[in-house]
Amino acid sequence: MKRKISGGSIVPEPALRRLPWYLAYVKLLEAQGEKVVSSTHIAKSTGVDSALVAKDLSYVSIVGKTRVGYDVAVMVEVLESFLGFNLSHKAYIFGVGNLGAALMHDRGLSQFGMDIVGGFDIRDEVVGEVIGGSPVYHLSELKERRDKEVSIGILTVPVDVAQEVTDKLVECGISAIWNFTPFRIMVPDHVVVQNTSIYSHLAVMFHRIDEAISGL
Amino acid sequence: MKRKISGGSIVPEPALRRLPWYLAYVKLLEAQGEKVVSSTHIAKSTGVDSALVAKDLSYVSIVGKTRVGYDVAVMVEVLESFLGFNLSHKAYIFGVGNLGAALMHDRGLSQFGMDIVGGFDIRDEVVGEVIGGSPVYHLSELKERRDKEVSIGILTVPVDVAQEVTDKLVECGISAIWNFTPFRIMVPDHVVVQNTSIYSHLAVMFHRIDEAISGL
Repeated sequence: MKRKISGGSIVPEPALRRLPWYLAYVKLLEAQGEKVVSSTHIAKSTGVDSALVAKDLSYVSIVGKTRVGYDVAVMVEVLESFLGFNLSHKAYIFGVGNLGAALMHDRGLSQFGMDIVGGFDIRDEVVGEVIGGSPVYHLSELKERRDKEVSIGILTVPVDVAQEVTDKLVECGISAIWNFTPFRIMVPDHVVVQNTSIYSHLAVMFHRIDEAISGL
Repeated sequence: MKRKISGGSIVPEPALRRLPWYLAYVKLLEAQGEKVVSSTHIAKSTGVDSALVAKDLSYVSIVGKTRVGYDVAVMVEVLESFLGFNLSHKAYIFGVGNLGAALMHDRGLSQFGMDIVGGFDIRDEVVGEVIGGSPVYHLSELKERRDKEVSIGILTVPVDVAQEVTDKLVECGISAIWNFTPFRIMVPDHVVVQNTSIYSHLAVMFHRIDEAISGL
């Protein structure tokens, strides 16, 4: 809707992934008291080719002034709105282990449009706790506890129960799953899955370190 | 070295990102007592095209038996070794906030070849603490505390100091940075950077949710 561009086409995923980099940078400029920024400056500071920056920004309804650049405050507002970071997307955490609890504590997420309103687990030591201001319930209470405004489930359970818990989420009508497990969960077509397996990134990083060492 | 394949060429990054999915799946099979697995079965369970699974596995020195498949235990061992998950890559956390502290607590990381041996921060409330068995030092002590075996710095600082802290890491000889901030850090060519900005993934997920709602 908001992020659907006027012609009816959609923003390519690589562009969507880069826009938050530009936002982080212009927010930093804003905090430093800067008023204007050029796309060349953004390009240089984010390591992205300047033609690509201009193209990415063309998906966003933001107009720069020739030889002056973009208004920093306007750009922050437009990018936050475009990326959905100014909204409040309610989410539950499934699996309140170290990572799950950290995400519940993370104030950063609410600045990026995500509001974690509760957690679910099966372990006595966390069920009944309040973490980051939100309660942790037993997974068996999912149906009765579920707030219908919550559309996102964040999956931070152990791999061996990833699919089983996913099935429960889908059954209770969760429409998007942010999967932090390295397991490839299976969902019906209408459910959105975003995989963020930090362990896959580890494999890529180790590989690059080896390449650097071996001088490839 | 280990992940450089025989012909001297290297494994494409998309393949490297998928190999941990296969590993997670075959480890699950191993825990369930399964002895053999076919590439077709792996394909089905990970949602990857079976020809692609076979191609990805061709980068790894693992031999399956016709009409039987791969030995599960051997595959776990070979994949862990290939991905560097059976090694111990020592790392420091920079910025012991919620995410940084969670990563220090995360026993999962050591199973994936990463050993966080310490943290650095500047805040009185965390400096001097021991988290997940590892000490937190003041950032000003980096040079004197630094263990030369530590080659990886995990960056979980606020955006406004991301570049400044990066410069300190590079100066003290850290050769790889796992960047969890949405800031695009600048480093010399010899330093490896792996970006894992979970907030960029949020933008992509919100976008997909909108697409699903608007029926694109």
